[in-house]
Amino acid sequence: MHISIEQIRQFSNQCFTKLDMPQEEAEIITEVLLEADLREIHSHGFLRLPIYIERIQKGLITNKADIHIEKENAATVVMDGNFGAGQVVAYKAMEKSIEKAVENGIGLVAVKNSNHFGITAYYSLMAAKQDKIGIVISNVAPLMPAIGGAEKVIGNNPISIAAPAAEGNSIVLDMALSNTAYGKILFAKEKNQQIPEGWGIDAKGLPTKNPDHVINGGFLSPVGGPKGFGLAVMGEILTGVLTGGHFSKMIPSMYDLNQKQSISHFLLTIDIKQLIPLEVYYSSMKQLISYIKDSKKAEGTEHIYLPGEIEFLKEARNREVGVPMQGETFKKLNEIARELNINALTL
Amino acid sequence: MHISIEQIRQFSNQCFTKLDMPQEEAEIITEVLLEADLREIHSHGFLRLPIYIERIQKGLITNKADIHIEKENAATVVMDGNFGAGQVVAYKAMEKSIEKAVENGIGLVAVKNSNHFGITAYYSLMAAKQDKIGIVISNVAPLMPAIGGAEKVIGNNPISIAAPAAEGNSIVLDMALSNTAYGKILFAKEKNQQIPEGWGIDAKGLPTKNPDHVINGGFLSPVGGPKGFGLAVMGEILTGVLTGGHFSKMIPSMYDLNQKQSISHFLLTIDIKQLIPLEVYYSSMKQLISYIKDSKKAEGTEHIYLPGEIEFLKEARNREVGVPMQGETFKKLNEIARELNINALTL
Repeated sequence: MHISIEQIRQFSNQCFTKLDMPQEEAEIITEVLLEADLREIHSHGFLRLPIYIERIQKGLITNKADIHIEKENAATVVMDGNFGAGQVVAYKAMEKSIEKAVENGIGLVAVKNSNHFGITAYYSLMAAKQDKIGIVISNVAPLMPAIGGAEKVIGNNPISIAAPAAEGNSIVLDMALSNTAYGKILFAKEKNQQIPEGWGIDAKGLPTKNPDHVINGGFLSPVGGPKGFGLAVMGEILTGVLTGGHFSKMIPSMYDLNQKQSISHFLLTIDIKQLIPLEVYYSSMKQLISYIKDSKKAEGTEHIYLPGEIEFLKEARNREVGVPMQGETFKKLNEIARELNINALTL
Repeated sequence: MHISIEQIRQFSNQCFTKLDMPQEEAEIITEVLLEADLREIHSHGFLRLPIYIERIQKGLITNKADIHIEKENAATVVMDGNFGAGQVVAYKAMEKSIEKAVENGIGLVAVKNSNHFGITAYYSLMAAKQDKIGIVISNVAPLMPAIGGAEKVIGNNPISIAAPAAEGNSIVLDMALSNTAYGKILFAKEKNQQIPEGWGIDAKGLPTKNPDHVINGGFLSPVGGPKGFGLAVMGEILTGVLTGGHFSKMIPSMYDLNQKQSISHFLLTIDIKQLIPLEVYYSSMKQLISYIKDSKKAEGTEHIYLPGEIEFLKEARNREVGVPMQGETFKKLNEIARELNINALTL
């Protein structure tokens, strides 16, 4: 089913303002969730609204962000998100990162005590929309073992890099560091299929092709083994360690309703025109895009896509037809509507 | 066989100074090659000396680096390496990146018109040895196809991130973006073995488990498919595009002796103490290391290693016994000794 963008926007804003969140903050969260569903990254879209609401109601996410700058130098800032909504904290931090880049060519804002912030690409794209390159990393609750481990110690810490392109959409990478999403393990089980090598580890820490062994006490594998593990470790350092915040086993799951999460983010901006003239940059981007998209295709392949291109195509289509939504999510959102006494979503 | 560090150092320096390279530049190249062999990254060690010598003799790498700053802002620099030796250019660029970080909290030097610079970790570790985090990326000649492609368009662009640790060695990631090294494909062929899923692509652009199909007109696969491909594309943008330098199909192989290479690098430094007190950082690192190394081990695993740890262990051992060297490399180096009229290496 598809919901009109205006309807879901109003609905989501009302949910948050009903909890005494300022309109501006409600709108930031709504836009990040909306963007995820439009790009069909549904795992990070309105599906998450119920857990955010629940965490705000329990005071685990504050309904008024009280962000403050802990340390500021010429080109770097450490921010304390003070348990505000992750989207609000990261949005403000990225604005600051861009400001620092405008002043110095490059700007880094490192944030602690934040929360789950939705799709990472939202923030890197804030930079790309202003002729800048954005690099954003976050840590999350631990999800993967070390290489040779049999216990969750490291998040599948997302990385997004966005670079503006000559014409049309930016090139934007947005990836987590597990080889695959947990949903694909569940899907294989449902279909009674084996999973490919490298996707999963069993409870003993050994590689497995049996989805049941991943689901029952096993783990997702880091992408490329030591490579994904290494990037994930560096992600913890660049976020939780570099800010004096939390990392690894200090971070509880966002579905644990007894504890605050304390997530850290790394938000870097490079102001392209302070390095080379924008026309040189955009001309090189056009050339790079052409090298890639016009390269010889594999047998059976019709189009070669750039990082993020498929998501932009989905977004363009969904902006016409409305936000795609699963029946289950629709139902849960309307339970919240009843609880908060706001108008239900309609088809 | 093992060669004493002092002997190989003198030998290598002499090779380069015989070609009228200044002593300082010869020493920089030597130290980077030496470090690679000590860490047992032999593909980037003295094995490469012959091709460097040949390229210098042909004027494809200049024997006196004439590096200049093309553009400098508060925290960013664009450098033109002017076809100097990659090690010399990257070393000077990293010094400048560290200087910028000391001034501003973070510093970025982006370099064009450089050459193959050896192991990426050498430069990120320059930052880590000074209580800083180093992030270094380089592009290289194209080696991998796009996802759905059947033509080399993108390098397996190396990324290194180094972060100093509380005690002992830094944590250092140094990875290329192919799933595996070409040498492992050759090894599987030699052993008449299949290669695992995800390592290789045949000439038609389709996945293959047959090493012959990779070797005969096929390709290495990016690590994690679209993830490695996406990181490699971003690597091209952060190096060749961001500097107005070369990228993708513009870059010839280093074994093509008719053309200059024009490699670009991205060298970023973060001055940790301008974000948080060093004692807080080091205490968090100690905690992170303990979470990882002391985590529950997989069945059959005795030790969990941090990124770069195995290489540090190898280096420590080799500093005692000397530089490990293949007979073939030894032979080739002594052919060069004869040609340049310097003392041969002895065992």
